[in-house]
Amino acid sequence: MQKLIGNAIVGQSGGPTAAINATLAGVIRGAQESNVIPKIYGARNGIEGVLARRLIDLSALTAENLSLLETTPAAALGSCRKKLPADFEGENRKIFEDIIEIFKEYDIRYFFYIGGNDSMDTVLKLSRFTKEIGYEMRVMGVPKTIDNDLAGTDHTPGYGSAAKYIATTMQEILRDTAVYTVKAVTIVEIMGRDAGWLTASAALPSLYSDVAPDLVYLPEVPFNYDEFFEDLTKAFEKHPNVVVAVSEGIRLADGTYVGEGTQSGVTDAFGHKYLSGTGKALEIAIKEKFGCKVRSVELNLPQRCASHIASKTDLYESAAIGRHAVRYATFGESGKMMIFTRLEGDRYKVYVDSADIAGIANAVRKVPREYINERGNNVTAQCLSYIAPLIVGEPEIIFENGLPKHFHF
Amino acid sequence: MQKLIGNAIVGQSGGPTAAINATLAGVIRGAQESNVIPKIYGARNGIEGVLARRLIDLSALTAENLSLLETTPAAALGSCRKKLPADFEGENRKIFEDIIEIFKEYDIRYFFYIGGNDSMDTVLKLSRFTKEIGYEMRVMGVPKTIDNDLAGTDHTPGYGSAAKYIATTMQEILRDTAVYTVKAVTIVEIMGRDAGWLTASAALPSLYSDVAPDLVYLPEVPFNYDEFFEDLTKAFEKHPNVVVAVSEGIRLADGTYVGEGTQSGVTDAFGHKYLSGTGKALEIAIKEKFGCKVRSVELNLPQRCASHIASKTDLYESAAIGRHAVRYATFGESGKMMIFTRLEGDRYKVYVDSADIAGIANAVRKVPREYINERGNNVTAQCLSYIAPLIVGEPEIIFENGLPKHFHF
Repeated sequence: MQKLIGNAIVGQSGGPTAAINATLAGVIRGAQESNVIPKIYGARNGIEGVLARRLIDLSALTAENLSLLETTPAAALGSCRKKLPADFEGENRKIFEDIIEIFKEYDIRYFFYIGGNDSMDTVLKLSRFTKEIGYEMRVMGVPKTIDNDLAGTDHTPGYGSAAKYIATTMQEILRDTAVYTVKAVTIVEIMGRDAGWLTASAALPSLYSDVAPDLVYLPEVPFNYDEFFEDLTKAFEKHPNVVVAVSEGIRLADGTYVGEGTQSGVTDAFGHKYLSGTGKALEIAIKEKFGCKVRSVELNLPQRCASHIASKTDLYESAAIGRHAVRYATFGESGKMMIFTRLEGDRYKVYVDSADIAGIANAVRKVPREYINERGNNVTAQCLSYIAPLIVGEPEIIFENGLPKHFHF
Repeated sequence: MQKLIGNAIVGQSGGPTAAINATLAGVIRGAQESNVIPKIYGARNGIEGVLARRLIDLSALTAENLSLLETTPAAALGSCRKKLPADFEGENRKIFEDIIEIFKEYDIRYFFYIGGNDSMDTVLKLSRFTKEIGYEMRVMGVPKTIDNDLAGTDHTPGYGSAAKYIATTMQEILRDTAVYTVKAVTIVEIMGRDAGWLTASAALPSLYSDVAPDLVYLPEVPFNYDEFFEDLTKAFEKHPNVVVAVSEGIRLADGTYVGEGTQSGVTDAFGHKYLSGTGKALEIAIKEKFGCKVRSVELNLPQRCASHIASKTDLYESAAIGRHAVRYATFGESGKMMIFTRLEGDRYKVYVDSADIAGIANAVRKVPREYINERGNNVTAQCLSYIAPLIVGEPEIIFENGLPKHFHF
């Protein structure tokens, strides 16, 4: 392996998570520890910031600040949704050449990109282009997404914290809704357009407490209103307060999203089809069918930014995968995505590794059918065993005057 | 003062909070410590449970269980919305006589009711009826409501925890929405039909961090769409990501709720006026006016049950007010509501006292006009100074396998 000496850039891209800054802290620590990376720069708003030379020197960030950064939600460097062009021809080539020019200007030999599918695509292209033009550098992708839908890794950094927030909140909502004796349904709408990993985590309280959502619907199984009404009728036989967890992305057999509002035919004053949301659509349908009290709760943004209830396991792993990305790059790897591999056995144990991005980028890892019961209205014990270790542990959050203290540049 | 020896009943009523069980624990501790209350019973589902003889003996609850109860959200005994009849005549009298019969059967001489306005009404009526018929007993109300809108007390048990949840979540949402460079508005809809106390707490991050909601609208000031659009335009001059906190109960000058959806004229397939919610109504209006990305987040149920981020100050005070209710009752008080009085001075300090319910029940304490800025689009420093001490401190939450452990009967 040839020793490559040069500076590094780290960037964050895609939707925020509660753990993406832990990975950033890990990358910065990895660079600080390395004897071949003199300086590490942070690019504001991902690759957009590289192109605009909006770079800040992170080399001297203190241990105290890095520790605070770890429990700060969202992307401290800012994020972007920019995708690099599909090929290196004509006008498109210009963008890649611009990036390399900036890399040369700052003597950048290492590029670490923390993000989801689109970001891995950026890593793949940059790694191919630098190879093509013979500019020696190491380009590494570090995954993050609350959706847990990236292929090639046991799970994604950020998922465990989102799952912990959802399971904790679900348990609290279950206590809340159980206080009355009146017949009522509470719909809890959870993020996940194509994969039901987040919604599956809502069933975690069933492992440890006396409460659990009655019904859990994921986008992996087509949703059927008649079966849903049957499921609700059965649930009412057990208790008056029924709680349902649904993915925002559940679809009917014909592929229509339940949240498209076609069921209720809601339109606004301008005649636009009104996108009521999945929970709201179900709320309207249940009200019509059962005439009982119905409420829908959309967990919304806190799912991806509630760092005050982050998973210690997730933050620890997220920092470790960032640190390892630097180590792997300095050892000669490039064009790879960092991954977690889970060891077989009763005790949860993962190790960090790397994998070729080519087979990973743009693939969606869905909840396997055997993780969902036959009826399609709940998850299986096998599914919960997979998720359970990812939410374990509570990080030390620093509070000041009753509010969590955050890091900011 | 005459020593009154007899058993006690405690009940919970109205909407759940994160602190109502702390008050329950306080009442139970108070009874356990007392030498005139041999037994304390818990009524399931408030006064409904009294009438149905659904009483459980709480006298031997261990310190460990009481401590767990303190950090368990919602009403562990169950709640109800039942109001007692307005007078003691004819059929109505029968209900009061039934209650007294049950009281006699269980030798009940103390009744503690934890709840909001309706519950104080129950306390008032029971205390009057027992006095009228000459049945010697002590009836005490202990307030709880996240809304902080009860008269006669500096603040209500439960408000501090809700405010801490809202401020913490707002700070996280502010970090989340700041990551992109694209023009966007995020509306955060907060509970509060008539009083804006909860929404005001969303501005707390402005005291301690670099982020704060740009605009804050309470129901105490009529909402005006034209001024709102002007406010947004000004906010966009500062940064591309504008965050707005609104009470669900904001109304136009003519008294119409913004959330009634009349503004956008949304109707469903059955021609019903579609209650889109306040955030959704503003979302639609902003999209039409500015054409930018808009998202609305309804904080919803977690505001009243997110005990994992409860305020230690609130839980401590909520337990103390319950304990004091027992002490005051055994000292001879009856027909009273327990209250907090804040001492003047720089350091926050409250003491527990009691007040006549007659002047308190059914009055709504709104946010005073001087707590809101002249334009009506934010709260004042004076308002934040009032709220700030109520969210201070973090209780010790017991986690098992990554989930908060709750108490249940």
